[in-house]
Amino acid sequence: MATIVILGSGIMGTALSFPASENGHEVRLVGTFLDREIVESIQTTGVHPDLGLKVNDGVTAYQLEQAKEAFEGADVVMSGVNSFGVEWIGEQLADLLQPGQKFLCITKGMRADEGTGDLQLLPDKIKEYLDPELAEQISWNAITGPSIAGELAVHHDTAVVFCGHDKDDLEYLADLFRTDYYHVWTSTDFIGHETGAATKNIYAFAAGFAEGLLRKQGKENDKYVMYNFGAAIFAQGQRELRSFVKLMGGNPDTADGLGGVGDMFVTSMGGRNVKAGTLVGQGIPFSEVRDQHMKGVTLEGVAAIKVVGKALGPLTERGVIKPEEYPLCRFLYSVVAEDAPLDIPWDKFFQDLT
Amino acid sequence: MATIVILGSGIMGTALSFPASENGHEVRLVGTFLDREIVESIQTTGVHPDLGLKVNDGVTAYQLEQAKEAFEGADVVMSGVNSFGVEWIGEQLADLLQPGQKFLCITKGMRADEGTGDLQLLPDKIKEYLDPELAEQISWNAITGPSIAGELAVHHDTAVVFCGHDKDDLEYLADLFRTDYYHVWTSTDFIGHETGAATKNIYAFAAGFAEGLLRKQGKENDKYVMYNFGAAIFAQGQRELRSFVKLMGGNPDTADGLGGVGDMFVTSMGGRNVKAGTLVGQGIPFSEVRDQHMKGVTLEGVAAIKVVGKALGPLTERGVIKPEEYPLCRFLYSVVAEDAPLDIPWDKFFQDLT
Repeated sequence: MATIVILGSGIMGTALSFPASENGHEVRLVGTFLDREIVESIQTTGVHPDLGLKVNDGVTAYQLEQAKEAFEGADVVMSGVNSFGVEWIGEQLADLLQPGQKFLCITKGMRADEGTGDLQLLPDKIKEYLDPELAEQISWNAITGPSIAGELAVHHDTAVVFCGHDKDDLEYLADLFRTDYYHVWTSTDFIGHETGAATKNIYAFAAGFAEGLLRKQGKENDKYVMYNFGAAIFAQGQRELRSFVKLMGGNPDTADGLGGVGDMFVTSMGGRNVKAGTLVGQGIPFSEVRDQHMKGVTLEGVAAIKVVGKALGPLTERGVIKPEEYPLCRFLYSVVAEDAPLDIPWDKFFQDLT
Repeated sequence: MATIVILGSGIMGTALSFPASENGHEVRLVGTFLDREIVESIQTTGVHPDLGLKVNDGVTAYQLEQAKEAFEGADVVMSGVNSFGVEWIGEQLADLLQPGQKFLCITKGMRADEGTGDLQLLPDKIKEYLDPELAEQISWNAITGPSIAGELAVHHDTAVVFCGHDKDDLEYLADLFRTDYYHVWTSTDFIGHETGAATKNIYAFAAGFAEGLLRKQGKENDKYVMYNFGAAIFAQGQRELRSFVKLMGGNPDTADGLGGVGDMFVTSMGGRNVKAGTLVGQGIPFSEVRDQHMKGVTLEGVAAIKVVGKALGPLTERGVIKPEEYPLCRFLYSVVAEDAPLDIPWDKFFQDLT
């Protein structure tokens, strides 16, 4: 039996407690400073309020001030916060992680160097907060692949890739979580999988445009919708996702798998980023969506566009990438950063066709 | 002004008459023996009954017995029938095509050699029916990419690739059709694009399973559906689609574009193949779906599974492909050919992950 501690008691971390606890492992959910009510709810009723489900026996919730206790003797440590919390979690883990623990990252995204535009994956960002000697004694791994948390929590088939640097560590971790509904592969293409997981969110925002354009024209209930439009955007997105995997030094084939196109597919099917894209499609400037219609809502896709889209500028100036690369990501950046209207730059897409 | 003749007056051929006629070209729609009522309707009212739309001025419908007249002086000849009609259209075109005409194929699919399993693209199959000397004097091209006919017909943005062997011919053809809503790229990767277009239908059938599984459990209106499941199937489908492109000798990058993942995406969003997959997901053996629930309905995806899935047997025996390749296509073949139950072979997927 292993002990797994998850820092952040949001829906994804909590969803992962289901397969782990059903395999007989102890799961300790540690709330962040934003999670106080979630932890209280689990402690008193067993119910995670956002998931709307009772957690399993063997899952215990801790408030943040009990974190040290929760981390004591844990074999596996997971980060269950979103990309906005990566600096915070880096600071926390610098104090809490203990040599020999295996880290399994759920947080997805990138950070960019303001000057050079060089992109950095979030687990690498977290690592920077640790004493280098400690960082060396931690096994660094991450979960990627199409995982809507609630679907996993209710035991619907979910297929993911645990990626990292050491195949034995990955197989150890995968075995903790594998069930007949949670299908886990392992891969040492850490860079490729994490890049796919981070960049897919960029394109999910664009997946909402078609519905918005239909609504703008009063055609949302027409016989013919706009799947052709959505599919073209998806295809250009997939080309750019693969380019990002190559740019970061990952295995391009990873773009075709669970951590690439699979994750982009599931993220395009709905959620907050898609909703934001729909509002932009309706003709609302993004700044108005952000400040009024979806004020306070966490938008991972928009965050990814802002970080990555902005970085494309200096990366282009430095000749790391070509000006004609990533036309969709550049366009999306102009939408979220400059309130550009939804004038799709079709003629810039699929430039590398021969 | 060019003259374009389309043999087959179904919805896709007719949809293509919109951009062409709006560019000032003459379009002649020739019905097959199954299209008599469609042609009559267009001749008398201008309305295509299945599309539910009036065709443009400059579009004329002909019954099959007027085909010779319609082909007279045509610059471009298109095949607007489905894959089941490929042998018929080959016979027709052997008589009707004239030297110098440019052929633009809409029909998608494959045929396989019964003995060897060797796969053949449909335009190549059609070519076999022609006198070799005539075949040499025809320019062979095809349209691929995500195109729901009705969406194109109502002028929703649609992005496609015209593929063929000669870039000048392709640009000539693309210019006939390009409008501000019909975005046309050209590519000389004829094999890659046609392979993607043919094999994507295989995986669209599987895109219906999730909805069926939910219905079987009475969970179709639950808060959490099965996008994780669908995304995993889609990702495995994309890997196999790329493998097919490589197997046929196409450019693997084509799998990421409009003729690959884009077309698979749009086909997975709905339609008859998805509906058939949903019924199988509900637990109905495929033979019952075919003979009762969807009797007489054209299922391109199932047809593709039967042809390609069956061919995998001899191709494996001959060592052309490995037994562990194409696990999803093989499984789908067992579903449609042997009424196999919906027991997804998860452990055979993503075998090439490193």
